[in-house]
Amino acid sequence: MEFTAGQIAALAEGVVEGDESVKINTFAKIEEGRQGAISFLANPKYTPYIYETLSSAVLVSRDFVAEKPVKATLIRVDDPYATVARLLAMVDQLMNPPRRGVEQPCFIAEGVEVPDDVYIGAFAYIGAGAKIGSGAQIYPQAYVGDGVSVGDGTIIYAGAKIYRGCRIGKRCIIHSGAVIGADGFGFAPTDHGYEKIPQTGNVDIADDVEIGANTTIDRAMMGSTRICRGVKLDNLIQIAHNCEVGADTVMAAQGGVAGSTKLGERCMVGGQVGLAGHIHIGDEVHIGAQSGINKDVAAGSRLFGYPATDVVSYGRQALAIRKLPTLYKRVDEIERLIKDNK
Amino acid sequence: MEFTAGQIAALAEGVVEGDESVKINTFAKIEEGRQGAISFLANPKYTPYIYETLSSAVLVSRDFVAEKPVKATLIRVDDPYATVARLLAMVDQLMNPPRRGVEQPCFIAEGVEVPDDVYIGAFAYIGAGAKIGSGAQIYPQAYVGDGVSVGDGTIIYAGAKIYRGCRIGKRCIIHSGAVIGADGFGFAPTDHGYEKIPQTGNVDIADDVEIGANTTIDRAMMGSTRICRGVKLDNLIQIAHNCEVGADTVMAAQGGVAGSTKLGERCMVGGQVGLAGHIHIGDEVHIGAQSGINKDVAAGSRLFGYPATDVVSYGRQALAIRKLPTLYKRVDEIERLIKDNK
Amino acid sequence: MEFTAGQIAALAEGVVEGDESVKINTFAKIEEGRQGAISFLANPKYTPYIYETLSSAVLVSRDFVAEKPVKATLIRVDDPYATVARLLAMVDQLMNPPRRGVEQPCFIAEGVEVPDDVYIGAFAYIGAGAKIGSGAQIYPQAYVGDGVSVGDGTIIYAGAKIYRGCRIGKRCIIHSGAVIGADGFGFAPTDHGYEKIPQTGNVDIADDVEIGANTTIDRAMMGSTRICRGVKLDNLIQIAHNCEVGADTVMAAQGGVAGSTKLGERCMVGGQVGLAGHIHIGDEVHIGAQSGINKDVAAGSRLFGYPATDVVSYGRQALAIRKLPTLYKRVDEIERLIKDNK
Repeated sequence: MEFTAGQIAALAEGVVEGDESVKINTFAKIEEGRQGAISFLANPKYTPYIYETLSSAVLVSRDFVAEKPVKATLIRVDDPYATVARLLAMVDQLMNPPRRGVEQPCFIAEGVEVPDDVYIGAFAYIGAGAKIGSGAQIYPQAYVGDGVSVGDGTIIYAGAKIYRGCRIGKRCIIHSGAVIGADGFGFAPTDHGYEKIPQTGNVDIADDVEIGANTTIDRAMMGSTRICRGVKLDNLIQIAHNCEVGADTVMAAQGGVAGSTKLGERCMVGGQVGLAGHIHIGDEVHIGAQSGINKDVAAGSRLFGYPATDVVSYGRQALAIRKLPTLYKRVDEIERLIKDNK
Repeated sequence: MEFTAGQIAALAEGVVEGDESVKINTFAKIEEGRQGAISFLANPKYTPYIYETLSSAVLVSRDFVAEKPVKATLIRVDDPYATVARLLAMVDQLMNPPRRGVEQPCFIAEGVEVPDDVYIGAFAYIGAGAKIGSGAQIYPQAYVGDGVSVGDGTIIYAGAKIYRGCRIGKRCIIHSGAVIGADGFGFAPTDHGYEKIPQTGNVDIADDVEIGANTTIDRAMMGSTRICRGVKLDNLIQIAHNCEVGADTVMAAQGGVAGSTKLGERCMVGGQVGLAGHIHIGDEVHIGAQSGINKDVAAGSRLFGYPATDVVSYGRQALAIRKLPTLYKRVDEIERLIKDNK
Repeated sequence: MEFTAGQIAALAEGVVEGDESVKINTFAKIEEGRQGAISFLANPKYTPYIYETLSSAVLVSRDFVAEKPVKATLIRVDDPYATVARLLAMVDQLMNPPRRGVEQPCFIAEGVEVPDDVYIGAFAYIGAGAKIGSGAQIYPQAYVGDGVSVGDGTIIYAGAKIYRGCRIGKRCIIHSGAVIGADGFGFAPTDHGYEKIPQTGNVDIADDVEIGANTTIDRAMMGSTRICRGVKLDNLIQIAHNCEVGADTVMAAQGGVAGSTKLGERCMVGGQVGLAGHIHIGDEVHIGAQSGINKDVAAGSRLFGYPATDVVSYGRQALAIRKLPTLYKRVDEIERLIKDNK
């Protein structure tokens, strides 16, 4: 596959600056540019690379002003990142068309209906009473427990595990190693150790959700642990039993949400954040990486730190701590003055 | 299955208040109540819901005093949470009876004895010299390495991996994605990079232990990494080589214990906690979420923070930090006064 | 297998002190010593155990001075830890010789060449266009996606998953549950939620790398996420898309590296550390456990804390915080004096 810069510009409704006949056959990051590649410049941190990149073309914003000569052909567009995303999607669809067919050996319980247009990989397991939507792709070694329903167009990658009775919506992506519906962590203390509290609920994942590799979402004690429409969870995240994650909320890797906590819609949660149990986070809350949250948070808040405070207070506190040695010196000096004065 | 509130009260040795003939056929959380459901009220945070719940019956403690009219039938018991746990266990046993039988294809090495009453799922792998206890349930795609022993009544969920030579006790539950017995992280620096130190020990898990989804427990360099009787580990926990976790200790999700550290009995460790290597935590120590512990801890301690201190000091420090901006102002004022006084 | 202390000393170029005819048939930690075992003393923290150990022999450094009588036979060597590592390696090679042969059923796509000397376990999946190096060991239930290349002598343990198009070098070890090449976490916000940005790159792992259990390394958006020669990653680590981890760098469990960050060579990163995206960490940087790093770090730095500072500043700050209650008392006293003086 090969395009000219001019062809790509036409596709992207962009304006070419430089040689529009230059040939493009791959993508490259701007700092790793090479001949035949197209790159993009969105984060200003990478601007210096545009003067050195070996890439043949670079997508830039319409208002980009070069401060030195640029060798690459520029294609000016409204949003370089969105444009490259769209181009990548086109290539991806060509290179990785949906898989179809049933590889053998796989295990499909009696009575399960398998639509014609699905993919079921070798060593996948489909339990009794499971429902597989049209166009679903279930990769090798995936486990779809008894009574699980998998929506139309959903992809379950190799080795992901869905325990009995859970529901996965349409157009979801569940990455390898994700475990959906393991028992919530519930035990009652007794005189002779802990007694397990059966977790009789399930996990209910709505449409257009993506679940990262090795992320775990526990089934509810009763009712459902809910992941709402459009949620994106990165890798190695823990969602405990009976939580609810609101629509279009995104969480970066290694975050953890303790039991029965509810997150609002359109929240952004940084990496390695911890949320205590039984709290409520409002809509559109942003939480900085590695923060810890142990109480309710109002909609629209911007939180950071441990224990988390709003971003302004956090900055003030951090500065106050950094200046502490100076404060000690000032108090030493005051005490010296007072002593001398007596 | 359907019961009346009166029948459930009889089962639970409780006292009915309201319509004892109301029909119950499911469980629901009190805030998600619906007709035909029974709920429970244990955490006072949820008390307001009892006046609005649509559930047909609610388990409450004997001394609960309603401040407004309650529509649901109340069943007064000694411990609502324990009662609901017992009811859930009864239902769970009816709904999810133990699995039996050997699904094909699975891989069972020559010479392994398979008791009549076990479940071995499709694509499970049982290595040479493995021992499978009576009533064990080994789900699809689980891996039981060479020489592993699995105790009576133990459940190994889909895709859990047990490396060679490890021992799992009786009545354990190992959730999907857990990895038991991967190599401990041991390397010796050399002039040309790190040299691997073979990890020749194993992991030894005693009876009645539950291991969460995607939790990892590394094999010992020599000897055993030990998980003692009754331990409950949540999801995504890391236990390094040669650690020991004492009986009836519970750890919440995403905690990590570095090499050779010993945890006492009946400890409670919060989520995302980190314990350094080669330290000793006494019995009945409680450690708050996200804390970091880097030295020995006496039995019975209550720790919090990073670096962790006892709960009282932690609270004092946190308050002192929050008040810092005020302290700076006070010192500014003092300096101004002294300057004016000169 | 049984050796005398004298034979082991000869092998290790050590000097025997005590009964050189004592029989050794196993290893034990010094604090768990038993008859017939050899132990070692490297960490001075364990010195007290040498006077009590039941082990028959102990490897000690040449300059170890006993302060009390020692019952065990001592073998004095230059580096007891390195010696025991070498002895363990010898035993390990005898006890766990490389596996060979192809177990059935497994899935090997048409056209894949399978060298004679490899191991492919039951239920392993080898996708179309994959390349399997000489002497590779691919354990049961492992997934090697389309077009993946696995270098000579590499071990992929049970259930590890390698997505399409990734490259694994020679003599690597990939532990169970590791996921190599899942999609990077990239989404573009739109009016109707997030749109997925296809991740069209791969993961490129060089030679002599070890990847821990349940660690996840995401494929690049374009280009490669790179793990350089000799890197050792512990369990449950997250490496985001387009990162680069430099040669011989080691990371302890549960650390996370956000997108496009580059780590230098020979760095040591403690457990549960978080690195922000798009930053650059120089060579030979050491980062203490649970630290958070959000900006570039110069080569050779020693960092600690959250937000991380150099170790000296961190110690100074921590002390300043611990002394805060005293500082408040001092300022109270000053204010009292000034008030009395007025």
